[in-house]
Amino acid sequence: MSAAHAYEPAYANRVERMKASEIRELLKLLDKPGIISFAGGIPDPMLFPVEAAAEAYARALEESAATALQYSVSEGYAPLRGWIARHMAEQGVPATPENIVVTAGSQQGLDFLGKLLISHGDTVLTTTPTYLGALQAFSAYEPRYDAIRPEEGNRSPDSFSRSAAAAGGRVKFAYVVPDFANPTGQTLSLAARQNLLSLARDFNAPILEDAAYRDLRFEGEPLPSLQALDVAAMGSLEASRVAYLGTFSKTVAPGLRVAWVCASRAIIRRLVLIIQASELNVSVINQMVMERIASERHEVLVARARGHYRIKRDAMLAALQAHMPPGVTWTRPEGGLFVWATLPEGVDGAALLKRAITEAGVAFVPGGAFHPDGSGANTIRLSYSLPKPEAITEGIRRLASLI
Amino acid sequence: MSAAHAYEPAYANRVERMKASEIRELLKLLDKPGIISFAGGIPDPMLFPVEAAAEAYARALEESAATALQYSVSEGYAPLRGWIARHMAEQGVPATPENIVVTAGSQQGLDFLGKLLISHGDTVLTTTPTYLGALQAFSAYEPRYDAIRPEEGNRSPDSFSRSAAAAGGRVKFAYVVPDFANPTGQTLSLAARQNLLSLARDFNAPILEDAAYRDLRFEGEPLPSLQALDVAAMGSLEASRVAYLGTFSKTVAPGLRVAWVCASRAIIRRLVLIIQASELNVSVINQMVMERIASERHEVLVARARGHYRIKRDAMLAALQAHMPPGVTWTRPEGGLFVWATLPEGVDGAALLKRAITEAGVAFVPGGAFHPDGSGANTIRLSYSLPKPEAITEGIRRLASLI
Repeated sequence: MSAAHAYEPAYANRVERMKASEIRELLKLLDKPGIISFAGGIPDPMLFPVEAAAEAYARALEESAATALQYSVSEGYAPLRGWIARHMAEQGVPATPENIVVTAGSQQGLDFLGKLLISHGDTVLTTTPTYLGALQAFSAYEPRYDAIRPEEGNRSPDSFSRSAAAAGGRVKFAYVVPDFANPTGQTLSLAARQNLLSLARDFNAPILEDAAYRDLRFEGEPLPSLQALDVAAMGSLEASRVAYLGTFSKTVAPGLRVAWVCASRAIIRRLVLIIQASELNVSVINQMVMERIASERHEVLVARARGHYRIKRDAMLAALQAHMPPGVTWTRPEGGLFVWATLPEGVDGAALLKRAITEAGVAFVPGGAFHPDGSGANTIRLSYSLPKPEAITEGIRRLASLI
Repeated sequence: MSAAHAYEPAYANRVERMKASEIRELLKLLDKPGIISFAGGIPDPMLFPVEAAAEAYARALEESAATALQYSVSEGYAPLRGWIARHMAEQGVPATPENIVVTAGSQQGLDFLGKLLISHGDTVLTTTPTYLGALQAFSAYEPRYDAIRPEEGNRSPDSFSRSAAAAGGRVKFAYVVPDFANPTGQTLSLAARQNLLSLARDFNAPILEDAAYRDLRFEGEPLPSLQALDVAAMGSLEASRVAYLGTFSKTVAPGLRVAWVCASRAIIRRLVLIIQASELNVSVINQMVMERIASERHEVLVARARGHYRIKRDAMLAALQAHMPPGVTWTRPEGGLFVWATLPEGVDGAALLKRAITEAGVAFVPGGAFHPDGSGANTIRLSYSLPKPEAITEGIRRLASLI
């Protein structure tokens, strides 16, 4: 071992397995001027509540600087936990602040839940495809993945258990994005949600419900969250197996890094220990600012974001309809930031991306990266969150001409 | 397994081992009005640059809101990494921004270095006592600990290796706080530093240098950091085995959660992958604000903090001298926030704390918690960071009367 690599990483592959990061590197290159990018999937900064944030920072420092700039408790700023508990209660989950822990983005919540639950060789159940960042977070703890199909019906619990045992571990939890999923834009039906909860009961294992896009519904009736359904079935949040990951990143702004996990107190208490051992607490001043913005204008911000992204989704769906050749299919999301397109069999998304950038000035994310099993080469993720509607139309036209 | 505990933690003890959190719970109870607290060890909020922070937040939102409130790159805000690289260079470490990654406090850096390096059963070398939060961070990855004594001379590398192998792992790294350590306030001599580097060379293993208090030197000549010594010996930072954890928490304010790791690019690249899989990036607006404050007034803030804490240290040392009975000894820190006292053999720090709170209205941290090996029952940590000088004098007087 050379001096330049004078360290030995944990296990062989704890960090190296996080290959998803290559995609993130790619995204950085793509989100550049001159390229119409459907790659990022990050919120449109036009929606950021800049003045409200400026006011809230000024006020936090004027009124409570000694608290705002100091260390704080690991569970989160109490008034913010209170707001979040009430927000959850409005959605059918009778949470108290003791059921809430504040995390630096839902991504951190996924990391910490992985740290709490996964031993080397355990099995995590996910849909295929699923959110890349979740795989990246969990992979640090070296699980294997097994695929669930809540919409089509799952394999028997015994079958999952046998596969898990053969790999030397157990089924530890299922991870899903039930609403307007990243990357597919699809929403699980009520029947699929009940299927999932039934599976969780069979295993007596948690479900991690990633609700990152849940608030961004443009049309159709909201479906109850997995957690709300489970609380209704089990009689209380303490008895529920669902850990719900909510965030302000898509509705207010991601730059403050403020999100939350809502779960039974047994889980929250342990997440608090994990936070104490990591960043100690999410920046208090950012939590104070988020509490003020959420209290004063969460509904307005959500309504504005819905209207804004709906126009962009409409532009993308119309352009796909107008320009895509036969053999290309795509999802029609009722909310969120993503359309998922399936190219004709044999067309490779990654190869198409190279041509799209050089020949058409258009970028997107090849779908293969979202598949833990390496399938999905002929799929692509198209995000409409950043480009203006006319750029969306033009970008899809150019992309279609390459296929 | 009852429904209320419908989850199975990773390994048996990943989270439960983080017993240090009990002490943090205790600290929360102690830092209350009416009690003279030597427990916390957190910065004095009187030193927070409130106006500068208010200006910097306002300016970030006025000039760069779309960046300040958005997601960002995991390695950190480029101008801040540049400032930190120059700051390191001034201390004899020729760092470039590629050698720097920004973390949400040094505590997060410790967690992520543990994640990078430790496999279950590996050995971490630490001094005894050592920083509680480091043990808490590392323990999540289930190492064992072995004690180094850089000042007195260490066991042979072979002896450490044999103990590590007997426990089923390897010596992965050494962790030290060389300057004004938490909890002892002591500083490693130049010879002790060379001992440590020699040990690291024997193992070809990293040293984690926790420099949290390094800037807070009141008197005496600064000693070169372990990293500066190692760079000089090895010829370059890329060849150095030292990962240096620096922070703004003790010199500017902890509430922004901004700190850094400076190390070879090989280590930094992997830490960036770990951050991508956890909180994605430290709050950009906080990084922007920290960059502005550091650029404009880091030296002034450091000088002010030194003067402020020096007065408090002097008050504590004078009171100890005046009031403590024979048989009690204590360290005389040249900087930082802590004095470490050793009580007569058989006097238990934890038992004394109970009496001190109820009978004298004084709080501190019993020293046993800082010992990975369970020793140190007759030691206590006294922080002078928060109380005013007259309260320090009175608190030590009351404490002495109990012993």
